[in-house]
Amino acid sequence: MPKVLGIVAEYNPLHNGHLYQLAEAKRQSQADCVIVVMSGNFMQRGEPAWLDKWQRTELALSAGIDLVVELPAKFAVQPAHLFAKGAIQILATLGCDVVAFGAEHPDLDFDQLVANQPIQESAHFKQFNETYPTLFHDYLLATTGINLEASNDILAFAYAAANQQLKRPMALLPIQRRGSDHRDSEVSANHSVASGSAIRKLLVNRDFDRIAAVVPETTLSTLKAAPAVTWTTYWPFLRYQLLSASLAQLETVYQMTEGIEYRLQRAAEQATDFANFLQLAKTKRYTYSRLQRLATSVLWQVHTDELPGILDYVRILGFNGAGQQLLNRLKKTAPLPLITKVTPEWVAGPYWLDYRVGRLRQMVTGVDQDLTRHPIVKP
Amino acid sequence: MPKVLGIVAEYNPLHNGHLYQLAEAKRQSQADCVIVVMSGNFMQRGEPAWLDKWQRTELALSAGIDLVVELPAKFAVQPAHLFAKGAIQILATLGCDVVAFGAEHPDLDFDQLVANQPIQESAHFKQFNETYPTLFHDYLLATTGINLEASNDILAFAYAAANQQLKRPMALLPIQRRGSDHRDSEVSANHSVASGSAIRKLLVNRDFDRIAAVVPETTLSTLKAAPAVTWTTYWPFLRYQLLSASLAQLETVYQMTEGIEYRLQRAAEQATDFANFLQLAKTKRYTYSRLQRLATSVLWQVHTDELPGILDYVRILGFNGAGQQLLNRLKKTAPLPLITKVTPEWVAGPYWLDYRVGRLRQMVTGVDQDLTRHPIVKP
Repeated sequence: MPKVLGIVAEYNPLHNGHLYQLAEAKRQSQADCVIVVMSGNFMQRGEPAWLDKWQRTELALSAGIDLVVELPAKFAVQPAHLFAKGAIQILATLGCDVVAFGAEHPDLDFDQLVANQPIQESAHFKQFNETYPTLFHDYLLATTGINLEASNDILAFAYAAANQQLKRPMALLPIQRRGSDHRDSEVSANHSVASGSAIRKLLVNRDFDRIAAVVPETTLSTLKAAPAVTWTTYWPFLRYQLLSASLAQLETVYQMTEGIEYRLQRAAEQATDFANFLQLAKTKRYTYSRLQRLATSVLWQVHTDELPGILDYVRILGFNGAGQQLLNRLKKTAPLPLITKVTPEWVAGPYWLDYRVGRLRQMVTGVDQDLTRHPIVKP
Repeated sequence: MPKVLGIVAEYNPLHNGHLYQLAEAKRQSQADCVIVVMSGNFMQRGEPAWLDKWQRTELALSAGIDLVVELPAKFAVQPAHLFAKGAIQILATLGCDVVAFGAEHPDLDFDQLVANQPIQESAHFKQFNETYPTLFHDYLLATTGINLEASNDILAFAYAAANQQLKRPMALLPIQRRGSDHRDSEVSANHSVASGSAIRKLLVNRDFDRIAAVVPETTLSTLKAAPAVTWTTYWPFLRYQLLSASLAQLETVYQMTEGIEYRLQRAAEQATDFANFLQLAKTKRYTYSRLQRLATSVLWQVHTDELPGILDYVRILGFNGAGQQLLNRLKKTAPLPLITKVTPEWVAGPYWLDYRVGRLRQMVTGVDQDLTRHPIVKP
């Protein structure tokens, strides 16, 4: 049996840091085949993808990924533990032997951290003047002495925790992140690696000269041709939704808690743009990422009784020859449906949310995301 | 006691035909004082008002109306019988002695028609290949021999029917409509009167030279300065709402019946603009007005369990000296609250829908409609 490597990615957009991570993961794992589970049209931090899932699948295949599958929206726009749970379950379902991911500190004792994670929310987590990530960090620091602070370390921890829940856990392969921290917002001169955030910042100003230094050529040309899809694109619709829905309706939106619907509605009345909206809505209790995910739930009109749900399908976005061989084998053994074509039945059934998210993408770009699309096939 | 005349109007926009109707009504009724109950920011046919309720109140006061009050949205965007019911109840509440309205055939025997109106929906109304207005017309023709077909005759009938339900019915004063039929879409050369529809058609092309002939100077200058608010303005938001809501949610929208939510959602996916959307959604069973009202309910996110509700307040939009005297007297005797200032309590309470509609107006024009507004006072 070939050795299969799994990677969780957003590729928003795919850049040189991802290429480095992929090469390292292949080298260290000695895998024969690489599967990427990738977010669809919205990112974990509650932001629209700059490029749609098909454009990003193209880039991933060009970078040497053998099989790209979609992380369903119900897992993709979630706090780290749910995001990781969905992604890890998919990679396990697809028979991965090893999972690679970037981390600021790959040598952290993730097993010890997982063993000491809070089982349920104690009084410690009821301090309403702190964000949940801060409380979580403080808790682990107190119990283990380990400083789990960098954003990719936190995700790595979540992968490790989700992996431990599997009947047959996969091997974990944390890869040292190179260059900028994911949260660094600047692209350094004379560096070939920059964070996704830094690249998106340059994208706002369409500063392609500087972007060219830190992304592969395929990414650069795709970005140049693509219209920008950001929260600025969706802001009028989010605002309309907040101004037209009743407070009772907003209260039932997924992850709307502690009466923050009042705050969001008032912020929508006053805000001049999305950034201003976030500023007005911000409290000590909510991170910007959490607010953005909440805004995403409002935009999508998803409700508390609808999410997160369970993993019940895997959508295939693209593959090359090796990926196709793997896929043919998986079709006989995988415990879940592997969807290569979205039918009206899937749209009305389990695929409803991904379809809705794709439809809202199509609404602003005119490019169909699902019903007419087939997996991208590379030679 | 002064004799008080009541008029139901939309003034979208106020034109020479309205001035003629007002003069005739004053002359024939010999009233001392005129109250107009006017739709707010959306019209009975399910269209946004070209000018907002404050601009139209200004025009009404300039035309010699003494007191302008708002027809709440829960009555304003409704089929004729509910529209008329709300309007007639308000005029009765405000102590009107006589109600004047335009009709194509003011000599029709409205009493006989009302006596023969269908009490409940018989099998006749279950012919699903005809619109309700057609079935209603055919029913009355069969029982009375009277041809109730012209749009203002139908409204006049609805006023008469609502008036009969009052404990103390008011006197009715149907006024012969002059010039174009309300549905005529052309402005004739050398005429000083044209229908509202015809004027709005000219407005789309900002053809102010031809509009000048059929509206008073105050209307003309207001229209010239005002941004256009039409369904074209709201179409992106309607489309977003239809594409992001689930079918289960849409099914609960006010007046969504017979599974038409499927049709609306599919039309929203395909339509290039609002007119195209209506064409795609149209069936033999639904008139364009009904579809537009349904689109309005979707845009407003109002649900079956929320409307129509009862008359529980009267919002004062403007008055002159005579209107103020009348208002002072009414404040002591009126059986309902007369609101001159909308407070946060009213917004969270009975005024919620008018406030929401005003907020959606403000969203596209930037002009506050409620919380900071006071009645317009003319000397």
